[in-house]
Amino acid sequence: MTHTHPFDSATEITQTGHGAYTAHTSETYGNMVGPFGGVTSATLMRAVLSDERLSGDPVSMTVNFCAAIKNGDYQITTDLRRAGKYIQHWSLEITQNGQICTTASLVFGVRAEGFSHHSGVPPMAKAFDQCAVEPDLGFANWLKCYEFRYAEGAPDMTGRAVGDLGPARSVAWITDQPARDLDLLSLTAMSDSFLLRLPHVRASFVPMGTVSLTTHFLATPDDIAEQGQHPVLGVSDATRFHHNFHDQHMQLWSHTGKLLATGSQIAWFKH
Amino acid sequence: MTHTHPFDSATEITQTGHGAYTAHTSETYGNMVGPFGGVTSATLMRAVLSDERLSGDPVSMTVNFCAAIKNGDYQITTDLRRAGKYIQHWSLEITQNGQICTTASLVFGVRAEGFSHHSGVPPMAKAFDQCAVEPDLGFANWLKCYEFRYAEGAPDMTGRAVGDLGPARSVAWITDQPARDLDLLSLTAMSDSFLLRLPHVRASFVPMGTVSLTTHFLATPDDIAEQGQHPVLGVSDATRFHHNFHDQHMQLWSHTGKLLATGSQIAWFKH
Repeated sequence: MTHTHPFDSATEITQTGHGAYTAHTSETYGNMVGPFGGVTSATLMRAVLSDERLSGDPVSMTVNFCAAIKNGDYQITTDLRRAGKYIQHWSLEITQNGQICTTASLVFGVRAEGFSHHSGVPPMAKAFDQCAVEPDLGFANWLKCYEFRYAEGAPDMTGRAVGDLGPARSVAWITDQPARDLDLLSLTAMSDSFLLRLPHVRASFVPMGTVSLTTHFLATPDDIAEQGQHPVLGVSDATRFHHNFHDQHMQLWSHTGKLLATGSQIAWFKH
Repeated sequence: MTHTHPFDSATEITQTGHGAYTAHTSETYGNMVGPFGGVTSATLMRAVLSDERLSGDPVSMTVNFCAAIKNGDYQITTDLRRAGKYIQHWSLEITQNGQICTTASLVFGVRAEGFSHHSGVPPMAKAFDQCAVEPDLGFANWLKCYEFRYAEGAPDMTGRAVGDLGPARSVAWITDQPARDLDLLSLTAMSDSFLLRLPHVRASFVPMGTVSLTTHFLATPDDIAEQGQHPVLGVSDATRFHHNFHDQHMQLWSHTGKLLATGSQIAWFKH
């Protein structure tokens, strides 16, 4: 009997029609309100990956978190908007009780051997086994589904004095808990596994959430296969927190120093 | 008689129904194939800005360039997918002869005075008047609609030897030509005014294009008003060019050192 990894259960979909699927929120990957956005994105990715019209590898994904998904079933629709020789554009949405919860666009590209140049430089980071495992912050179930080992900028939730701000940047080794070979689904989820930069900077919580998340997939299938269960090195930073919104940027590096994905998001915070 | 700036003509829309508009490609802002993507994005922005249901300021926009728009009329539809207390999610599309050319999502947020922290650091750059005006590269009309003064990483199209790669990063002062006060439309267009990093690196052209472009708007209306006709400082970089795709990242800084927008894109290249 094979054991199903909780991530595969959390992203499970059932086809109900042409480009139509039902999925179910996962308590294991629950967030403070609604499910962990990374699993929502991965479930959308899984729907498109299951489509027989699919051609190519994912290269870009934008997910707009319009409203929290309530615990229970939700519906996914996928629509192939335009397909060219090299590129497919998909539009997706999640509804629950007829209300839009999430909209997304997903771009797939046919890739071939060709020009390759790695202009990005991996962050200077302490080795995985030299970084301590971050204790569970305890505010959301999904955090228990990853092991984070911070090389730099570990979260400090002690509530520093007003005006005594911490760095927005952090660098951390990230692994699925329990261990799982990297694939496109887990890479999608890990792209959203960085805590919002606001509590990193302010060392305290206010109501907040990701509004729109964009991920660019730079990894080819061989990069992903090579990664296996090795830890991924994640870098996250933000440049401006201003009047209820801040940007946030991330990079995910393979254990051999290849950039697997880059991305950015805009997050809302109450005050 | 008032003179209409060519940018305002290029982004002109005519409402034809509820959330339905007609626009027309602009020869002045033409690209190698189809119109300059920045003007396409700005025209989509203009459609939503004209909608009476609109609430708040733009905070994030993703534009998927599915197929080139042919010279002539094209149709825009806008759809308010979900509106909450603070945030509106819009979906947009451009069609021509019934075919999808562009899909986009646009997020607006209600902003109020509150926490503000500028963790990003402006690039070290020579002053505007110490940078030479970049000669017209001549390959697309829209390039004549901006003045670029490179502080770093000016394009070199001389065709370096294979393997002798240039830097992906450039820093440039950007102004509308002729001069025009900054507004949300021109900020949207300028977010796409960076040349693709591929020719910067390889010093030569191959068939290529932006596939998906995401912009996060960090500027509040007072930031934009303060900017007026001052040059904007743009930074652009890329981290990995690999098997037909590369990512690209940008920042647009005000003349007083405020981050107006950040963004990223994925670009396709033939070989």
